[in-house]
Amino acid sequence: MLLEQICKENDIKNIRREDWDSLAAEIRQFLIEKISINGGHLGSNLGAVELTMALHLFLNLPEDKIIWDVGHQSYTHKLLTGRREGFETLRKFGGMSGFPKRKESCCDAFDTGHSSTSISAGLGLVKARDIRGEKNTIVSVIGDGSLTGGMAYEAMNNAARMDTNFIIVLNDNNMSISENVGGVSKYLNSIRTADNYLNLKEGIYQSLLKKKHGSAIVDVIRKTKSSFKQLVIPGMFFEDMGITYLGPVDGHDIPAMLQVFKEAKRCKSAVLVHVLTQKGKGYEPAERHPARFHGAEPFDIATGVPKNKRIKANYTDVFSTIMVKLGQRNEKVVAITAAMPDGTGLKRFRNVYPDRFFDVGIAEQHAVTFAAGLAAGGMIPIVAVYSSFLQRAYDQILHDVCIQNLPVVFAVDRAGIVGSDGETHQGIFDLSYLSSIPNMHIMAPKNKWELSDMMKYAVKFGAPIAVRYPRGEAYDGLSEFREPIEYGKSEMIFEEDEIALLAVGSMVKTATEVRNALKEKGYHVTLVNGRFIKPIDTQMLDRLSQNHKLLVTMEENVESGGFGEKVRTYINENGFNLSVLSVCVPDEYVEHGNVEILRKEIGIDAESVVNKIIQKMEK
Amino acid sequence: MLLEQICKENDIKNIRREDWDSLAAEIRQFLIEKISINGGHLGSNLGAVELTMALHLFLNLPEDKIIWDVGHQSYTHKLLTGRREGFETLRKFGGMSGFPKRKESCCDAFDTGHSSTSISAGLGLVKARDIRGEKNTIVSVIGDGSLTGGMAYEAMNNAARMDTNFIIVLNDNNMSISENVGGVSKYLNSIRTADNYLNLKEGIYQSLLKKKHGSAIVDVIRKTKSSFKQLVIPGMFFEDMGITYLGPVDGHDIPAMLQVFKEAKRCKSAVLVHVLTQKGKGYEPAERHPARFHGAEPFDIATGVPKNKRIKANYTDVFSTIMVKLGQRNEKVVAITAAMPDGTGLKRFRNVYPDRFFDVGIAEQHAVTFAAGLAAGGMIPIVAVYSSFLQRAYDQILHDVCIQNLPVVFAVDRAGIVGSDGETHQGIFDLSYLSSIPNMHIMAPKNKWELSDMMKYAVKFGAPIAVRYPRGEAYDGLSEFREPIEYGKSEMIFEEDEIALLAVGSMVKTATEVRNALKEKGYHVTLVNGRFIKPIDTQMLDRLSQNHKLLVTMEENVESGGFGEKVRTYINENGFNLSVLSVCVPDEYVEHGNVEILRKEIGIDAESVVNKIIQKMEK
Repeated sequence: MLLEQICKENDIKNIRREDWDSLAAEIRQFLIEKISINGGHLGSNLGAVELTMALHLFLNLPEDKIIWDVGHQSYTHKLLTGRREGFETLRKFGGMSGFPKRKESCCDAFDTGHSSTSISAGLGLVKARDIRGEKNTIVSVIGDGSLTGGMAYEAMNNAARMDTNFIIVLNDNNMSISENVGGVSKYLNSIRTADNYLNLKEGIYQSLLKKKHGSAIVDVIRKTKSSFKQLVIPGMFFEDMGITYLGPVDGHDIPAMLQVFKEAKRCKSAVLVHVLTQKGKGYEPAERHPARFHGAEPFDIATGVPKNKRIKANYTDVFSTIMVKLGQRNEKVVAITAAMPDGTGLKRFRNVYPDRFFDVGIAEQHAVTFAAGLAAGGMIPIVAVYSSFLQRAYDQILHDVCIQNLPVVFAVDRAGIVGSDGETHQGIFDLSYLSSIPNMHIMAPKNKWELSDMMKYAVKFGAPIAVRYPRGEAYDGLSEFREPIEYGKSEMIFEEDEIALLAVGSMVKTATEVRNALKEKGYHVTLVNGRFIKPIDTQMLDRLSQNHKLLVTMEENVESGGFGEKVRTYINENGFNLSVLSVCVPDEYVEHGNVEILRKEIGIDAESVVNKIIQKMEK
Repeated sequence: MLLEQICKENDIKNIRREDWDSLAAEIRQFLIEKISINGGHLGSNLGAVELTMALHLFLNLPEDKIIWDVGHQSYTHKLLTGRREGFETLRKFGGMSGFPKRKESCCDAFDTGHSSTSISAGLGLVKARDIRGEKNTIVSVIGDGSLTGGMAYEAMNNAARMDTNFIIVLNDNNMSISENVGGVSKYLNSIRTADNYLNLKEGIYQSLLKKKHGSAIVDVIRKTKSSFKQLVIPGMFFEDMGITYLGPVDGHDIPAMLQVFKEAKRCKSAVLVHVLTQKGKGYEPAERHPARFHGAEPFDIATGVPKNKRIKANYTDVFSTIMVKLGQRNEKVVAITAAMPDGTGLKRFRNVYPDRFFDVGIAEQHAVTFAAGLAAGGMIPIVAVYSSFLQRAYDQILHDVCIQNLPVVFAVDRAGIVGSDGETHQGIFDLSYLSSIPNMHIMAPKNKWELSDMMKYAVKFGAPIAVRYPRGEAYDGLSEFREPIEYGKSEMIFEEDEIALLAVGSMVKTATEVRNALKEKGYHVTLVNGRFIKPIDTQMLDRLSQNHKLLVTMEENVESGGFGEKVRTYINENGFNLSVLSVCVPDEYVEHGNVEILRKEIGIDAESVVNKIIQKMEK
């Protein structure tokens, strides 16, 4: 096994050139096996095997730095920096992260998770290097998808001014969504073939075009219908910005990449190396179904079929179904996603109402203000987005939607603890950042039926409103409680006295367990489904304060600015003689791992809550 | 007076062609006069007079829509849509806004204020139009400065895919507020200065590629080094993206613009019309000092000199001074601004330490992650930014700075009520959105000396930390209170009993007034300067709770997630028998107007606070 000879960074340099292909094959085999057991990001990692090897052969880690945009494609990087053992615990609680982490290895130069950050971070490292008078090489590796995010452009616009070396590797796996080519691309293509292009006499890029291999690539480019391709292929777009362009180069040909990297290092400027890779390369099911193998559940290697068949619907499925109905009932309903038609469940809406569906790419800021524009034009836009990605559009919600009080609906998926993606992806801030915004309204459903009811309510609401719901299986308990949604009103589930549980969203389910446990111990326990986080139901608080000793607020969100603080403020303001216990996510980042373990770890699982309540009651 | 003939939208169409120049001159005269009295944005408006006239001649308002990016250049638009009288009250409380407002006129298609939103909003209106089967024309007018914001790029990338008409007017005055930065700016500049621009003065570009003239240019490109290619073909950057480019056209030549607009309307795609204007056009002082006349205070028309000389330093001046000192003491200190070297006071730092100063353009997202990269590279970056613009970088603070606990210092200027710019610019959310983030720390100085002390403390702190301070004159009272800054500790100013005022930042000054008034009425009043908003000083709260009946928190921030909620939560959690009154900005947008009037209006001025306290005490 060649792989076993690699125990730390730079060990790859001892592998003979003729063994590179075998090593690549071993890495692929290793990744497929491990991910088939634990799950993880497969396609992007299989696509980046040779690219990562080439970078490790070219660079000297940890002095040189690689910043992996998004970062879920860094598995080979982890393997080549002595973390083979870590794959047993990949994405598990206490185990190795699925993303680069500075605390995990000195070879991880910068933590990533969200898209389009790598050029900004790399530029910071470059400038710090120059100020310190050091000479190391900094490489940011960014995918073509990430390049649709505005911050990547902001960073390139700044990189363009530099008179110092900075290598940006564009890992182009052709996975962005497509449209027109047109004459411009053709015209620029002719510029690209011009002999004098940057005096690239060694001509990786020229030879690429001259050889049959190269012309095949050019052919693919010509046939690809991609507005994004127009941007990048000929390179003039980057050159116009002031960034030197090299490529395209075959991202599965290590010697070719090494040659271009050498060329790139000679530039006293920002230089973009355009590398063409294939997502899922070397594993047929992943090549054929790139979306399914993007973030894969454990699967059978022979067939590629997931091992654990889902039986129950998840919240995204419920959202998906109701969206089609809403689209049918109201022609004004339009749907927007930022590069997540599958993840958010909007694919079905797209198939039925293609003219009212918009995938804007990884561009949350634009998504929200575009929705505001649609609303100003008389539509009812539903922006379906993950909680942690919506953070990108805080200003747009505040400034473009809510000042004008426009009827934009935010379907905030993956709210709360998301699990194995970890700290960068936990949806534990949305109640806070959305609550701070005037004119915003926030709801969270207790179960799957309530998600449908809330979406129907939201579409008719006529002002900015968010519905936040968690990742994973939709709760189908409490089906007998289906009071109509009423503005600002919570829902009484079980009314007793002594202890009142006031839970929002996913925590209503937990609250039922808490209630059962407490009742076994002889307590009288009221359970209220909060429904509205903003505005809170003050009448219900008045009522609860009359015959309860303890009010327990329960939410999967940080305390600061969350539901509990709002409730506590009301109780305190009105001088109610009622003790309040706030169950929420503590003021710290929550790492990766199984959701149940994490909930226990941060003290929001039923058992922890029961203990806290008993402690409080016994005081 | 021609201007008097214009009482509503489309009246301009009755002005004879030969009178257009006279009308433009009258408008300039009017704007100079009004702004010289009330203050306001002058330079950008003088530059856009003919452009606005041309748009109004070309379009049919309100059916057609103009979205003004940023929006402070919409004064001529307001004049031409029947709001001449409004200029008496421009930017005054209850008067006309300095920005487009849908509630002000049916001709204001979309509210703006922050940069780079217009193409997204315009695209939303375009898609809504198409879904409704309407035929009106949508025009987004964006400045070259706004084009450095990533969201403009996200929007253009989406606009490029359209097969329907959408006109983007690039109002290129070669300036944001200060000089423009980055590759794109350089690129636009190359278009402006290219020799062949003179040949294209009529502004129609189609001749370029189709005729022999065009093929000659293509020939030149082939023979020219790539970095100079951009000099030759105007607009290829946009064409590469898939957006039709028309121009450049002289933005002070109405007939020329009308011709290009007509051309643009025929395109079944997104089309960018590149219009060259001069900021401050027609008023010599504004032409010579564009930065000073960007947002001008009242001035003398003959000389251009401001009427009200400032005597006292403002907080920005204090920050400016301390930054130079910090840069001198520590070589690791670097400073970052997003297009605001003047506004944030970093100009002096830039002059002394040009290699450690970075103006990234209007690009807050990049600014923050770039700072994170600098910090990861061993620097101590100080990001100086206005509170309301930092909203743009909420995710970057949370995701790129704070997860890695990097020592980035945020100097948050214009925090609190800012006055005449109004709802889009009030800095009343930063305590909330920053508080929600783990690992973040927040301070606010009571007076000018404390701002210096806090900046010194922040630079040594070694973790993410923000110092927030208000717009305007720096408070120089309480100079005898200058206890060293200590982690998480507030400062006791006057210790008595009965009522405790716990104020942060600008509200400490207000609290001294409140205290004086209360003491006159016989109350015993403690005054504490909070200093830290996160973490709060719990020891001080323990102490205050022992001998006070009422605790009053005071902050210039919304309640949700703010200082008061944190304090209240602690008090309530610990069951202290202490009533809490929270003085804060109510949950609504605060309009434009004089700061003192606004404070009174929202109930955070000394008199209002005194009344609330007395009411509470008498209960």
